[in-house]
Amino acid sequence: MAFDRLIDKIAEMQNPTVAGLDPKLDYVPEFIKEECFAKYGKTLEGAAAALFEFNKALIDALYEVVPAIKPQAAYYEMYGWQGVKALADTIAYAKSKGMFVITDGKRNDIGTTMEAYAAAHLGSTTVAGEEVEAFGADALTVNGYLGTDGIKPLVNICKSGDKGIFVLVKTSNPSSGELQDKKLDDGTTVYEQMGKMCEEWGTELEGKYGYSGVGAVVGATYPEQLAEMRAKCPHTFFLVPGYGAQGGGANDVKNAFDENGLGAIINSSRGIMCAWKKQGLTENDFAKAAYNEAVRMRDEIIGCIGKIKK
Amino acid sequence: MAFDRLIDKIAEMQNPTVAGLDPKLDYVPEFIKEECFAKYGKTLEGAAAALFEFNKALIDALYEVVPAIKPQAAYYEMYGWQGVKALADTIAYAKSKGMFVITDGKRNDIGTTMEAYAAAHLGSTTVAGEEVEAFGADALTVNGYLGTDGIKPLVNICKSGDKGIFVLVKTSNPSSGELQDKKLDDGTTVYEQMGKMCEEWGTELEGKYGYSGVGAVVGATYPEQLAEMRAKCPHTFFLVPGYGAQGGGANDVKNAFDENGLGAIINSSRGIMCAWKKQGLTENDFAKAAYNEAVRMRDEIIGCIGKIKK
Repeated sequence: MAFDRLIDKIAEMQNPTVAGLDPKLDYVPEFIKEECFAKYGKTLEGAAAALFEFNKALIDALYEVVPAIKPQAAYYEMYGWQGVKALADTIAYAKSKGMFVITDGKRNDIGTTMEAYAAAHLGSTTVAGEEVEAFGADALTVNGYLGTDGIKPLVNICKSGDKGIFVLVKTSNPSSGELQDKKLDDGTTVYEQMGKMCEEWGTELEGKYGYSGVGAVVGATYPEQLAEMRAKCPHTFFLVPGYGAQGGGANDVKNAFDENGLGAIINSSRGIMCAWKKQGLTENDFAKAAYNEAVRMRDEIIGCIGKIKK
Repeated sequence: MAFDRLIDKIAEMQNPTVAGLDPKLDYVPEFIKEECFAKYGKTLEGAAAALFEFNKALIDALYEVVPAIKPQAAYYEMYGWQGVKALADTIAYAKSKGMFVITDGKRNDIGTTMEAYAAAHLGSTTVAGEEVEAFGADALTVNGYLGTDGIKPLVNICKSGDKGIFVLVKTSNPSSGELQDKKLDDGTTVYEQMGKMCEEWGTELEGKYGYSGVGAVVGATYPEQLAEMRAKCPHTFFLVPGYGAQGGGANDVKNAFDENGLGAIINSSRGIMCAWKKQGLTENDFAKAAYNEAVRMRDEIIGCIGKIKK
């Protein structure tokens, strides 16, 4: 099961964090942009090349201390198919460095179409009898609003292909409660219902640490709900956004972990990509600053939850 | 407002339908595949070229009788960035023929990231001070599970750029009820709540026919809920999947329309793309068969709802 592989890496590195690669062009240092625009023009192609160069340098700086990256699909799609190529190249590069890759796409659809998304992001596509990987991430974030037949095609690929998914349960944004916190007539909330579905979808995918291949997204900005869901979803591994730029700290995320320090991975995106701004460095030192911030974040979280035991 | 433009086209053509372009390679006739594989190899590039040629022929056959296309992003993503390029090319080609384009991506995320999706699919991206369109559709399907701040960036683009969105309310798949039909403690359902949110999000975007730029996806496979939501969401334009291959007929979809025959557009994907199979034609005649099926579907629906008045 995919999250066994992720948990092994987390324990080995003693670092339960993931670097979010959401590379807006504004975050990319001028010297990279200039080089890429000179080569490919001030075009989507040039912009996409700059994103990939930026990501490569970040991955080079991070792969020995951070177990995983989480590229956010939106920031690549906004640069067209050229940006989507940069996403594919980033995934391949991170995997070549041994990193675990979570594509943050929040994909969702009905059964047959979800099979296409599953093939796109986790599995493979048949072209003239040959199997070809389109994006080939290790895990994908998904939205469960459509129910079981929108999730089943992913569970099948998780089972056969050593992959995982993270279903949105309680998101980190201010208005997440408008629907997710609504009380159902049995007294539970919509996000609880979604958590319950994650536990059910994961039953066939339980791994050696007790966590299944069906994880959940639960935001650091709601620490009480994080504690509640940790207790109610004992087999569900959490991807926790909202640390850093969105306001969550180590004390907010500690509720995501079990007594062994397992059960969750904490994401930081802007905090790592734009770390040079906070460290009094120039943008030329963005990679070094990203490394410093990744180490600081690791130490802060491990300081709070203790040594990770598996 | 974008749906005014769509409604004008629907009334002009007396055809409230949209052709879903979900081109799996299996649906593409052999002669197109052979030509593209010969040119680009049995690769993702060759497959993507075949999808685009298939789509182009379908658009040529349909644009004089069908007002809109709905490409489903998953079927392009499964062919990698090359497939995503075919999506961009398909959108551009359909727009050059005057068609209204709804990208079916069911995108969703928190505020800042949703801005990136909005720029990607409906708006434009800034590259070195220039505005560039990445995909440039007229409308996008989205998932509202994250609440208002996941929708607001789209509403802003709808307002300034004459675009529209369709929010998933009640989807056409068998398990859609697992979450969407759950009763809240005030006696309403989750999908009703989502419909209510669509009405609220649309208040600033009302167009000349009374429909806002925030539409809803409501499946043909649940005709009772379709009637219920038509009554409860009088300003929300519906995109209705589930006609044809999924089992919905003209009688099932008539509930989606108001007394003037406005208020909805009905999608058919496989029914149109694979029409030659049902018409006793060979795959070489796929475009002619698609045209025949589009006309048959139009006549069946208009026969059921009467002349469209605006």
